Amino acid sequence: MKPSFAIGIDLGGTNIKASLIDLGSGERRYSLSRPTLDGEKQGHLPRFAWTVRELIAELELKAGLHGLPVGLSAPGLANPSGHCIDWMPGRMHGLEKLDWPDFLQREVRVLNDAHAALLGEVWIGAAKGCRDVFMMTLGTGVGGAVLSDGRLLRGAIGRGGHLGHISVQADAPADDFNTPGSLEAFLGNQSLLLRSSGRYPNTHALVSAAAAGDEIARQLWIESVRYLAVGIASLINVLDPECVILGGGIAIGAGDELMIPLKAFLEKMEWRPGGHAVKLVLASAGEWAGSYGCVAQFLSTIG
Amino acid sequence: MKPSFAIGIDLGGTNIKASLIDLGSGERRYSLSRPTLDGEKQGHLPRFAWTVRELIAELELKAGLHGLPVGLSAPGLANPSGHCIDWMPGRMHGLEKLDWPDFLQREVRVLNDAHAALLGEVWIGAAKGCRDVFMMTLGTGVGGAVLSDGRLLRGAIGRGGHLGHISVQADAPADDFNTPGSLEAFLGNQSLLLRSSGRYPNTHALVSAAAAGDEIARQLWIESVRYLAVGIASLINVLDPECVILGGGIAIGAGDELMIPLKAFLEKMEWRPGGHAVKLVLASAGEWAGSYGCVAQFLSTIG
Repeated sequence: MKPSFAIGIDLGGTNIKASLIDLGSGERRYSLSRPTLDGEKQGHLPRFAWTVRELIAELELKAGLHGLPVGLSAPGLANPSGHCIDWMPGRMHGLEKLDWPDFLQREVRVLNDAHAALLGEVWIGAAKGCRDVFMMTLGTGVGGAVLSDGRLLRGAIGRGGHLGHISVQADAPADDFNTPGSLEAFLGNQSLLLRSSGRYPNTHALVSAAAAGDEIARQLWIESVRYLAVGIASLINVLDPECVILGGGIAIGAGDELMIPLKAFLEKMEWRPGGHAVKLVLASAGEWAGSYGCVAQFLSTIG
Repeated sequence: MKPSFAIGIDLGGTNIKASLIDLGSGERRYSLSRPTLDGEKQGHLPRFAWTVRELIAELELKAGLHGLPVGLSAPGLANPSGHCIDWMPGRMHGLEKLDWPDFLQREVRVLNDAHAALLGEVWIGAAKGCRDVFMMTLGTGVGGAVLSDGRLLRGAIGRGGHLGHISVQADAPADDFNTPGSLEAFLGNQSLLLRSSGRYPNTHALVSAAAAGDEIARQLWIESVRYLAVGIASLINVLDPECVILGGGIAIGAGDELMIPLKAFLEKMEWRPGGHAVKLVLASAGEWAGSYGCVAQFLSTIG
């Protein structure tokens, strides 16, 4: 029997967001948030594992239900079994190989966080009803995820959709993943200090300065947008989506300051056979997209 | 009932290859080849359409069978219905929108030629049994196709897998598809005259000269291979394959002259989480790969 409710856990580096969601209506019944406290331990397990267990108990108590299936998203590469995150070096200590169905004693499906955000958009957001979509998330770095013929492109080891790690400048230095001149080196907050010689602390400040008439900021921002357009044009030729979604703090914050120049670049760079142009939209599922996306794995229609 | 035999038609710019294939054993029972004669007409239809019909009749006569299902591959974007090629400007005159099931009065599934080549490799060649693979075909230009979770990535309008049209140099001039500095501009015979200032007529001559100690040729070839490595490293991050296949005249002709330096570049450029390296192999299905690939559409296990 299909469950009627499920719990979505968006386990991030800063906060853990938990929601009890009605699988029929898509309604979020109860939601809770707690700090992740990455690095703290309780016994041999990370503190956040126990917090996840407490959040689930609390939601089930509120709802008067128990043993609900759980979708959990986290950074890193999810094992194809959906039982754990296989690979997440450097942060989220104790997350790698933690077996969530075993720890939570119930059905749990573990998903990469960018994959979850896309499924959230497909269920309740900007890509509702789409079967071929990719999403790029512009924040600290550039994340991504791909839906192909209605299914999440997970790939052989859960790495599918690392769209920020495509090269757009083969002669530029390599990024953390060894990709020379990756999109992430020209876009996102992590690379901005280097790109702007420390002039702008983050992309929000850069875009605001550009909008206020700062010519250096304007050139730097337009350069970022041009690289993004190059990356999107390339990925359209590979993935042939109906729709491209832009999400993350930078995209949502910049809005038209991003979309207007980006669309102008794509007018020139996008391959449009027979005049067919791909739809370009901002993410719309909001901060609970990840929780929705994890839970969407229990729907028969998505994922 | 599943058919036991099917006919594969590889409709190329120069020749039409037709095979009657045993779907159970994968054995090619009869094969024929005729010139395409692109540009010639017979009535209001292109000459090649009639040739395809004749080839089918001839194969069925040899086998004493009739009404066999047909898989047909051709250049251009295949309609999602699989009934026709929607888009193929400039050559193969009369191919666009030609409704093959209607013309041949039977079940026909139409496929893009690069997609067919990949399915051929998945059925009988270098990717046997793989579920996540991409293939790059190095010839006049750079073609490609993607298998994701066991299914061909066709995309929304049949454009999926145009892997030669990803940018590896955002500041370089745009290609025919508007992509700035695409991989195809650094690899393949079409761009070689320009890249070598007319010094080498084709990549075979370039690779031979490089192998014989011509330093200019060597540098130019290694540069091509480096761009290819950049493209492959990027696509691995997007598609996360188990295996990457290189096919086409250039790859098969160059063999180790390609694979040895390419593997050395990928040692540096490929993201290998937990030491996991993607397998890199040459295509092995040979000149009938396309016919096999079209017919593979009638198998329940592939496509």
